[in-house]
Amino acid sequence: MGLVRNGEIEMAPREAATVTACLIIIGNEILSGRTPDRNVAYAAKWLNEKGIQVREVRVIPDVEETIVATVNECRATFDYVFTTGGIGPTHDDITSASVARAFGVPIVRNEEARRLLEDQYIPGDLTEARLKMADIPAGAELIENPISRAPGFQIENVFVMAGVPAIMRAMFDSVQHRLVGGAPVASRQVACFLAEGQIAKALGAIQDRYPDLDIGSYPFWKMRKFGVSVVLRGTDTDILEVATEEVRDMIRGFGGEPQDESGD
Amino acid sequence: MGLVRNGEIEMAPREAATVTACLIIIGNEILSGRTPDRNVAYAAKWLNEKGIQVREVRVIPDVEETIVATVNECRATFDYVFTTGGIGPTHDDITSASVARAFGVPIVRNEEARRLLEDQYIPGDLTEARLKMADIPAGAELIENPISRAPGFQIENVFVMAGVPAIMRAMFDSVQHRLVGGAPVASRQVACFLAEGQIAKALGAIQDRYPDLDIGSYPFWKMRKFGVSVVLRGTDTDILEVATEEVRDMIRGFGGEPQDESGD
Repeated sequence: MGLVRNGEIEMAPREAATVTACLIIIGNEILSGRTPDRNVAYAAKWLNEKGIQVREVRVIPDVEETIVATVNECRATFDYVFTTGGIGPTHDDITSASVARAFGVPIVRNEEARRLLEDQYIPGDLTEARLKMADIPAGAELIENPISRAPGFQIENVFVMAGVPAIMRAMFDSVQHRLVGGAPVASRQVACFLAEGQIAKALGAIQDRYPDLDIGSYPFWKMRKFGVSVVLRGTDTDILEVATEEVRDMIRGFGGEPQDESGD
Repeated sequence: MGLVRNGEIEMAPREAATVTACLIIIGNEILSGRTPDRNVAYAAKWLNEKGIQVREVRVIPDVEETIVATVNECRATFDYVFTTGGIGPTHDDITSASVARAFGVPIVRNEEARRLLEDQYIPGDLTEARLKMADIPAGAELIENPISRAPGFQIENVFVMAGVPAIMRAMFDSVQHRLVGGAPVASRQVACFLAEGQIAKALGAIQDRYPDLDIGSYPFWKMRKFGVSVVLRGTDTDILEVATEEVRDMIRGFGGEPQDESGD
């Protein structure tokens, strides 16, 4: 909490800090099923590598009240909030104005953003609708968009980015230096052709012995056989290795053959 | 609101009712980026065809407090809540117990569910871990799982389903007769090779003239050209047709060639 607003926390041992994030995906097209989400998995992995754990995702419509309420709830709950979508030139692009309202600040034409757009369009093409993309909450810092120039912005711990996957990815790279992560979460993944129900009790006992790890179990169906992937996640790689070896032993104990997989 | 709990609303004209839903995707594997979501778009389209509009999606971790708080908030806000994930046999499958706590009811071994599992497994294989899948909140009604038998359940307006896509889809089919939809939302989609910023102002004016429609604009890049798809959604197909024709005319007015697409 308050990580970005308070430099002090950086002095704490990095191992001690758990840094959390929430993604807010803004767009009727995701909620209608028209556009399958392609951003959550990418953002989650990218942030995780930086020691920032995505703890919640919300997909919400282009409705001002909902955006305002969601942004305000999430920015009070998580260290970082990343929104995607709704910062283009059309009437349904209301994210910037809604975030301004969430922070209780006016939305103003940002001169730096306007210059970026002027460089991008030939003069007659820079319509008022496109200029709207230079309207940013007062006090926000721009987020560079190397692809189509129209910037995102950061205000306190909220990062407002485009929904187009390639632009969102570039914007994450643009803000990397502004983010302070905690201990990166490492993972190990072991699969076997045993059923989840066979190993459930023994796996639960391993989870009980390693409360600092997050152990998940994911059934699959492959080569006409049921199997299960066990994923272990934690910040202490020594403990992770010991627990992973216990999972392998447990699988062997049931007559299975543990196979290491590359996990996330 | 209160639709499932109150038969009266069914007497209202179908056109008048807007029926809303929230999806709660429960699982650390989605939040870590390990498993890309494959359920939201399917569920959104399936529900939309039944006249049920998905207004929010939440992706949350396997954490009891979070599940309880999210289920309670969402079941008070939306007509229907559908959860996916966390109803298997392992230690991290805590959805059923958490939903019981959200409703303030005990979780009990359901005899019908136990029989389903007994039919599915040879006697020695029905471990205590697997029997846990027969533990259901008191008063809940089972949701049939034609694929692997272990059932989901419905309690009031909350439907608890599996996260495995094939099973989730089958469970939606199982509960179809229990759902009462409002007016189905129809959509039209028109694409053109114009930039979003060119048509933004004129499109906003069309949205202003048809406040009952939801008009979205989605840029794309195809055959080395920028284009935009305009999606119009609404419950009144006559109005939808008229507004769609205005969009086509507007595109022609900018020198573009409107192309009808199949929308969702």
